[in-house]
Amino acid sequence: MLINVERAARMLREYDDYLILSHANPDGDTLGCAYALCGILQKAGKNAKCRCADEIAPRMKYLTDGIKPQEFEHKTIVSVDVADRKLLGSLNEVYGDEVFLAIDHHRSRTEFAEFTLVEPDAAAACELIYEIAETMNVPLDDKIATCLYTGLATDTGCFRFSNTTSRTHYIAAKLMEYNFPYEELNYRLFDMKSKGRVRLEQEIFDKMEFYCDDKIAMVCLTQELMDRHRDSVDSEDFNGLAGMPRKIEGVELGVTIKQKEKDVFKISVRSSEEINASEICEKFDGGGHARAAGCTIEGTLEEVKAALLPELKKAVERID
Amino acid sequence: MLINVERAARMLREYDDYLILSHANPDGDTLGCAYALCGILQKAGKNAKCRCADEIAPRMKYLTDGIKPQEFEHKTIVSVDVADRKLLGSLNEVYGDEVFLAIDHHRSRTEFAEFTLVEPDAAAACELIYEIAETMNVPLDDKIATCLYTGLATDTGCFRFSNTTSRTHYIAAKLMEYNFPYEELNYRLFDMKSKGRVRLEQEIFDKMEFYCDDKIAMVCLTQELMDRHRDSVDSEDFNGLAGMPRKIEGVELGVTIKQKEKDVFKISVRSSEEINASEICEKFDGGGHARAAGCTIEGTLEEVKAALLPELKKAVERID
Repeated sequence: MLINVERAARMLREYDDYLILSHANPDGDTLGCAYALCGILQKAGKNAKCRCADEIAPRMKYLTDGIKPQEFEHKTIVSVDVADRKLLGSLNEVYGDEVFLAIDHHRSRTEFAEFTLVEPDAAAACELIYEIAETMNVPLDDKIATCLYTGLATDTGCFRFSNTTSRTHYIAAKLMEYNFPYEELNYRLFDMKSKGRVRLEQEIFDKMEFYCDDKIAMVCLTQELMDRHRDSVDSEDFNGLAGMPRKIEGVELGVTIKQKEKDVFKISVRSSEEINASEICEKFDGGGHARAAGCTIEGTLEEVKAALLPELKKAVERID
Repeated sequence: MLINVERAARMLREYDDYLILSHANPDGDTLGCAYALCGILQKAGKNAKCRCADEIAPRMKYLTDGIKPQEFEHKTIVSVDVADRKLLGSLNEVYGDEVFLAIDHHRSRTEFAEFTLVEPDAAAACELIYEIAETMNVPLDDKIATCLYTGLATDTGCFRFSNTTSRTHYIAAKLMEYNFPYEELNYRLFDMKSKGRVRLEQEIFDKMEFYCDDKIAMVCLTQELMDRHRDSVDSEDFNGLAGMPRKIEGVELGVTIKQKEKDVFKISVRSSEEINASEICEKFDGGGHARAAGCTIEGTLEEVKAALLPELKKAVERID
């Protein structure tokens, strides 16, 4: 059953003994939500604790600071930023059909909870947690502000992406009234790179292929390349590489071909405002957003490139 | 004479025929201020035009869009984001002693105008222009919002740096109610890199020296290196390189040694919260902020490094 912020806040005041679940392979938003909500519920006099199927990356460990561990048997399960019970990972089997309240912001989702608060226009699920705290009339503190800010920043690329709204900045303005080291935090989330990641990016750039007067840039992440770097990078260093080709000045269409199995490749397409990436991917039974889309193509790398390139060139020639 | 926002707004309503001056080597804040204020004054029924000593970089040309050029003889000169009349560049000689109103946010400045509105706590001078428009009761539009947002984003590294305040986000929230392509704009300001810049960064990383278990990273930008890249990069591609060493995970102290003349080197030091960069630079008669400071050392590159390294190592060993 779909509910609004007021109803969710009323419920959270009513029940107790909360177990808060984040999605597996956790990011700043799901963890920010969990630890902020945990802090808010504890301040409201409730028992609350958090769980996640996977470990928290070292650079996000600060989110767990200052939450007091409470020993109790949980009675009420809340999931945060989880669009599908499968995304709970190994916790799906244990808790997947017991979720009482799901708080989320994904547009496409599969309902699994008894009650669901979902706002697809929220840039981050943390926006909803902020509004819940406000409605519950629980004052924030530095620690909770840190968690909520992390969620906003992570899901918007530090307020850069098109999902950022006036509300996102308004909430950030409220959070900034608290005291937390947001510069250091943004440095860790956005600027800091491991040596291994820098070397991986260097090799990807060296092998980048350019077409149509450099308006198309393409990289191939083969198993061989990824295996060769695996020892010197963390698994999360392989994230976010799909954005690389489009970052080169003049590139209108950035394409990443990532090998999934021997003859199976996942394609990510990022485009400038002039080109519809989704239309290109639909030709290969994929889809997505106008400026970021994807598809899967089977065949050898050469066959995949031969299939893709004519469609990419057509899209670029159309804007000339 | 120092004045406040109310007084500045009242003056701008009173006078007419404005010439608005940006500082030389213009950035997003000085240009955002100029074109926003120009739009605001024109909407208030005034004549207004902008001038800058230097050309506007292609990636910021959009700021000049949609401002209607007006032909008139100026009577009132306003400078924006200019901390010293010398920073007007070649326009200093022409207009430097005729500035009626200076609007600025720099903490250290030399007064040169008849009236000055300065707020050192403003992250960007554009915050003051926003408040002037509000006080003048001139409604913004998409074009003016674009300019003001650009100023906020540029001077805060897209809301990442420690100068960002609650007010910065509050103003951004207000600006986001207008319609402008902030994702594309942030992409151009922060993500996009020329091929030449990527190659320059690669070489700098390859030559980066690490000390004290990788807690110190140091790069040397010699004349030879810069000359070799000069043909394949824009002059502004040489900006922002001082931040590179500190971006490597684990680095507490990032040092850039930039050759100015044969035996003269400018040192930039960036540090984590644990280390005071300014204290290090003070030993070489330099200074700055706790986390970003600089100094100049004379000698051969080897002599400069030999002088610096013991001080860097001492600072890092102190935190172990």
